[in-house]
Amino acid sequence: MSFHSMWAELLPVGRSSASGGYRRYAWTAADADCRAWFREQAEARGLAYEVDRNGNQWAWLGDPTAGDAVVTGSHLDSVPDGGAFDGPLGVVSSFAALDELRHRGAEFTRPLALVNFGDEEGARFGLACVGSRLTAGQLTREQAHRLTDGDGVTLAQAMESAGHDPDAIGPDPERLARIGAFVELHVEQGRALDLTGNAVGVASAIWPHGRWRFDFRGEANHAGTTRLADRRDPMLSYAETVLAARREAELAGAVATFGKISVEPNGVNAIPSLVRGWLDSRAPEQHTLDTVVGGIEKAAREYADAHGVDLDVVRESFTPVVEFDHALRDELARILGTDTGLTVPVLGTGAGHDAGILSGSIPTAMLFVRNPTGVSHSPAEFAAEDDCVAGVRALADVLEGLACR
Amino acid sequence: MSFHSMWAELLPVGRSSASGGYRRYAWTAADADCRAWFREQAEARGLAYEVDRNGNQWAWLGDPTAGDAVVTGSHLDSVPDGGAFDGPLGVVSSFAALDELRHRGAEFTRPLALVNFGDEEGARFGLACVGSRLTAGQLTREQAHRLTDGDGVTLAQAMESAGHDPDAIGPDPERLARIGAFVELHVEQGRALDLTGNAVGVASAIWPHGRWRFDFRGEANHAGTTRLADRRDPMLSYAETVLAARREAELAGAVATFGKISVEPNGVNAIPSLVRGWLDSRAPEQHTLDTVVGGIEKAAREYADAHGVDLDVVRESFTPVVEFDHALRDELARILGTDTGLTVPVLGTGAGHDAGILSGSIPTAMLFVRNPTGVSHSPAEFAAEDDCVAGVRALADVLEGLACR
Repeated sequence: MSFHSMWAELLPVGRSSASGGYRRYAWTAADADCRAWFREQAEARGLAYEVDRNGNQWAWLGDPTAGDAVVTGSHLDSVPDGGAFDGPLGVVSSFAALDELRHRGAEFTRPLALVNFGDEEGARFGLACVGSRLTAGQLTREQAHRLTDGDGVTLAQAMESAGHDPDAIGPDPERLARIGAFVELHVEQGRALDLTGNAVGVASAIWPHGRWRFDFRGEANHAGTTRLADRRDPMLSYAETVLAARREAELAGAVATFGKISVEPNGVNAIPSLVRGWLDSRAPEQHTLDTVVGGIEKAAREYADAHGVDLDVVRESFTPVVEFDHALRDELARILGTDTGLTVPVLGTGAGHDAGILSGSIPTAMLFVRNPTGVSHSPAEFAAEDDCVAGVRALADVLEGLACR
Repeated sequence: MSFHSMWAELLPVGRSSASGGYRRYAWTAADADCRAWFREQAEARGLAYEVDRNGNQWAWLGDPTAGDAVVTGSHLDSVPDGGAFDGPLGVVSSFAALDELRHRGAEFTRPLALVNFGDEEGARFGLACVGSRLTAGQLTREQAHRLTDGDGVTLAQAMESAGHDPDAIGPDPERLARIGAFVELHVEQGRALDLTGNAVGVASAIWPHGRWRFDFRGEANHAGTTRLADRRDPMLSYAETVLAARREAELAGAVATFGKISVEPNGVNAIPSLVRGWLDSRAPEQHTLDTVVGGIEKAAREYADAHGVDLDVVRESFTPVVEFDHALRDELARILGTDTGLTVPVLGTGAGHDAGILSGSIPTAMLFVRNPTGVSHSPAEFAAEDDCVAGVRALADVLEGLACR
């Protein structure tokens, strides 16, 4: 089955006719459809199919217990109203790259596995990379069981409904010990690659990133009768902080975003008692991120004081810089450079990935495919078919270089 | 039953133990408890109790059909987590004023009615003053039937569940034709009265006021990987507009508030595609309000353009200035001035009331009771007991002056 046919087959699964975006959330019917597709692809190619204790799907060529396996893959779930490429491009390209290698008559000297990691986006239970985190021991069974979705359904209940035993989940060091290298292909989520003019690049590092919750507490009051001078309106300090975040990020060459907000009582004729805003910020280096977030928090405190508003800032999550394995990264760049005769761009990224989680346990690398608009996490996310095919060829070259020596 | 005892009896009804505020929404169990209380008070005083076609409760002394009745009252429902005084102070004071007049041995020459208007706050179905609007013909049965609450329950279904016939609702000109004057006592919702040093004042007018919805549409994108220069982030233009609203209101001596917001997709790691903010603005005069809202909209368009964001502004509701009946207002001021020997303050207000709705049909006036903090629509809403008692005495004086000549 060609890349094109596989892509066309997956395209309608979990797509909202209202938004045109994808709603493939972990352990839902749409997710089950994606997982059934993965299994069919594996079995059609005579690969040994298995689901691990954490619900990640694997398709093996060669002896899984032999060790030093080369693994490639990504995820099939989506953010709310996400695009078609973030995740699925890496999974479909894995199957297509294997087809290409078989077409080339490549002989494998190491076991190869293709993988679909579960619940990468965290769209339903609020935590990203649950499948790989559990496997790597970065999330305990107890912590995972406590995760709940917007309807109050726990992750354990959702797994059970989908036929996966929630008591089985937990760290999987034996599985990781069998893997010699993991390579994840992913659509780029910015325009850095496009600006270099290349279709494919190699990842250097994932920027340090985190989430901070800003709680501005003022005083609920009547919007029609309360004099401006008597107000303690937290919306004003929130608004000033949103603008400060943009300024600080611009000065430092970082990114900072307030994309989520919760307001109480959220009534048209009520001055809010509480405005809760979430800051997402990322930067190429730790000290830059510290400067940006420190600057935003300092400004927010000044604004809050000026309006008689109380401010609490809570760091909800934080991931330090992830440097991908230097030897593997250089090996990928060498293989691709030999293939094309060009210098392959090596790029940092602001997005988290399963590859980032696993890089603490095993040698890990990433390939990026050009995204001409840089748009991601949106129905408008796009990569040209020629570039996708170039990605498949690059991934095949990399797998051949690593597993067929 | 004294003012104090009546007040204490109502105090626990519909009060949230979590917030300390009231959740007395139309046609709920808490509302039914309030309505049962009204009926008991009416019957305990030998008044003729009735519910009109629109669910408003009435308690009559004298012949309702005689005409030229004097009516007083307010409402018992609340905003979400509202205070104890907004509404109930007027209803409780009506019963207490009648008790005071009977104690004085007053002889009534006009029929007197006490009233509890239904669904004044619009907390559940989103439209304020439903009971009085229906009665005055400012809301049709069809429009009312289409109103729905946050759970998708229609007003018609809610009425039916509570035992009121939704097909009976509609204009009630015969009832209005029997009324010669309506006087609503209400806690002040600002500090204007407190600044004059008086416990009780008379209303001059309700400021013109309205609600405008600002839809800022940008482009959803990944918060970690989208360069600042490539963003079309609607949160930035929203934030700038919030601050512009404050500046414009301050310059003009008006009020302007963004208290309600809705964001899509509202994810921590997503640049929003849509930020929808609601502006509530009010001013002493129409031309001032036009200047304020026009200035805010002009600024918002400039900000949106600068960020590549589309902006739609929709006026969702608007109420022109309501001047209370001048003759009745002057009569009230004369009665209270004769009583106290002082000049009674005559004040405008930014809040809407049933009295404002009815002023288009019948001579209407309002009394305000001092609110030392100006806080309203909040559990912290407060009036001192001495001031409440002064309010009862003032209302009794007014009713005596109007109905016992």
